[in-house]
Amino acid sequence: MNGSDGLRRRVAIVGIGSTTFGEHWDKGLRDLALEASLKAVEEAGIKGKEIESFYVGNMSGGMFLGQEHVAALVADFLGLKPAPAVRVEAACASGGVALRQGYISVASGLYDLVAVGGVEKMTDVQGSLAATALAGAMDTEWEAYFGATFPGIYAMMAHRYMHNYGLSREALAEVAVKNHFHGSFNPQAHFKNRITVDDVIGSPLVADPLRVYDCCPMSDGAACLLLAPLEEARKYTDTPIIVEACSQASDSLSLFDRGDICTLEATREAAGQAFSQAKISPREVDVLEVHDCFTIAELLALEDLGFCRKGEAASLYKEGQTYFGGRLPVNTDGGLKAGGHAVGATGIKQAIELVKQLRGDAGGRQVKGAEIGLAHNVGGSGATAVVTILRRGG
Amino acid sequence: MNGSDGLRRRVAIVGIGSTTFGEHWDKGLRDLALEASLKAVEEAGIKGKEIESFYVGNMSGGMFLGQEHVAALVADFLGLKPAPAVRVEAACASGGVALRQGYISVASGLYDLVAVGGVEKMTDVQGSLAATALAGAMDTEWEAYFGATFPGIYAMMAHRYMHNYGLSREALAEVAVKNHFHGSFNPQAHFKNRITVDDVIGSPLVADPLRVYDCCPMSDGAACLLLAPLEEARKYTDTPIIVEACSQASDSLSLFDRGDICTLEATREAAGQAFSQAKISPREVDVLEVHDCFTIAELLALEDLGFCRKGEAASLYKEGQTYFGGRLPVNTDGGLKAGGHAVGATGIKQAIELVKQLRGDAGGRQVKGAEIGLAHNVGGSGATAVVTILRRGG
Repeated sequence: MNGSDGLRRRVAIVGIGSTTFGEHWDKGLRDLALEASLKAVEEAGIKGKEIESFYVGNMSGGMFLGQEHVAALVADFLGLKPAPAVRVEAACASGGVALRQGYISVASGLYDLVAVGGVEKMTDVQGSLAATALAGAMDTEWEAYFGATFPGIYAMMAHRYMHNYGLSREALAEVAVKNHFHGSFNPQAHFKNRITVDDVIGSPLVADPLRVYDCCPMSDGAACLLLAPLEEARKYTDTPIIVEACSQASDSLSLFDRGDICTLEATREAAGQAFSQAKISPREVDVLEVHDCFTIAELLALEDLGFCRKGEAASLYKEGQTYFGGRLPVNTDGGLKAGGHAVGATGIKQAIELVKQLRGDAGGRQVKGAEIGLAHNVGGSGATAVVTILRRGG
Repeated sequence: MNGSDGLRRRVAIVGIGSTTFGEHWDKGLRDLALEASLKAVEEAGIKGKEIESFYVGNMSGGMFLGQEHVAALVADFLGLKPAPAVRVEAACASGGVALRQGYISVASGLYDLVAVGGVEKMTDVQGSLAATALAGAMDTEWEAYFGATFPGIYAMMAHRYMHNYGLSREALAEVAVKNHFHGSFNPQAHFKNRITVDDVIGSPLVADPLRVYDCCPMSDGAACLLLAPLEEARKYTDTPIIVEACSQASDSLSLFDRGDICTLEATREAAGQAFSQAKISPREVDVLEVHDCFTIAELLALEDLGFCRKGEAASLYKEGQTYFGGRLPVNTDGGLKAGGHAVGATGIKQAIELVKQLRGDAGGRQVKGAEIGLAHNVGGSGATAVVTILRRGG
């Protein structure tokens, strides 16, 4: 894509639905997916049969549940057959990639009503098996085989960043404090408890310098949104949210193959494309959802997306600028850290939070007058990044 | 899609490459994918950097290898970054679904050169683990949990079909005999040995009435093709092959949810759409690749695709009609049965065999004057089906 993507039509989000993110011991993958999808269908006032195609992001139904063929499974129980059902996978960016494929299928003129979902059921396996499954997002032969874990990979980034830019342990903790504060306003968040910098620094060590409160949880959850051409959006909703851009880029899977482990090149590339297509600059973004699988990841994201220069993200946390009342509200739903991380669903959950903010439906955490939102979804340690820009319809 | 898919441009296949299908003890998933992709790139005379996007079908890198995020992994080692890399999964139809997503991305005007691959590395696990991975294509809670296996599911279909239509054990065996004969002409086939009806009937029982020679093997393999707009195809090849249609449909995941287990409704639906879009009838098809994971599946496919009436497929095997010299050549590369079934790669391998036939490059198994080919790729026991119609460029 070169700036404008050359597709035929503008696309709008016309319905949203999601489960709470957390430990759903009483629900399986299909139950979660159905709950989220039916909410979206009800909100848009449609019948499932009207949906022409279905994309779902799911990272590892195989390793978590022994269940592949996830899109056809969910489509079956949603009553969508014979509509085509496509599972896409790009590790933790599976949801964002599903959104992009759905966007292409509507923007191209192929379909007039498409459901895009994300789902992950992560709590049905023991801890070490879950870590094995998540290690599938890395290069298993060149990283995981030698003992690397995801917290370990991001810990290396954090250490290098602290060395390069003098980031303090306390400043890093501010990311988690802010996201837990936001989570306390989100009824669907995995964690709603507020924490302090001391709580973060005093929590058990996971991979130095990252502690428990630096790491997002593993969540069960599902999210779904409905896409339609903008010109038909008001058939379904009074407040269509326009998808101004949805861009994806790739980078090396392994950390050791990158020039600078404090920069996610895929984020930079996808952001550049998205801003160009949407014809806006970072200054015009009112509310942000970024991929904070670990505290350090949120700082990298703000820099690589262009909201500040490299090494300066921590300064944005002074005086509450990244809180929902501040100049640049980041992860108003609690992000991955407190909102929860149901891997395949996260990219869709991020878009849904933006839709709520842009509709003015975000309740106690509403960003006043928000008109433009940006979502940033990362797979693995940055090999895939998707950047989506949404705008409130006129 | 309603007949014509409303997309902007016609699409052509401008390069192909594949590994042999079989047991590749010396090669991993990335090695196989690289071998196939580099062949396609060399054939088209391009540099990898020219590829704007990459789709790859892979059923279960997770359960077979612990490796998810497969598209980014392969794109990384192919040097494609920052091009978007998307893995799609629909069990054994993963390759066909990847082809369809790549087709949409070019037909829509979004991209001018896209690589579509499929890859599976299946032999690195013990037998029972492989069966567990493949069971992920079924409904694991409602079928696999109760002991159903894939041969068991297809055995039920075969039994019902024999009961309904009086199919003999010998007639069913003719499918395998023909596919092994074809495989003996294909240097890339998993099996190149010719067999007899007595060999099939005398082979060990797997799930009554299906015996070893009724079942396709588990193969390692990869396949890749390059897609471009038809109007630009001659930059890359003298013999562009036009993608006239690529249609996908869904059905219930579980056998018990279907009205008739001898009919794959998703195949019927996808075929109807594909014939309508390509504006041809089955009579005009010169060469066919159908999803023969088991012998019975090939008979069902010929009926559900519209090449004969229900219950009459076996009659097409009299007098060599389905052999490459016959009236309706089916699975000229040996199909899944003898050609091999590297699950995620199969849908791409099928398209590649058709490209060879339509180019006139199929060597000793060439179908004389073939102008139109049809590929049929099925996921699970029929919950996903993709039908692709290819035509030799004028």
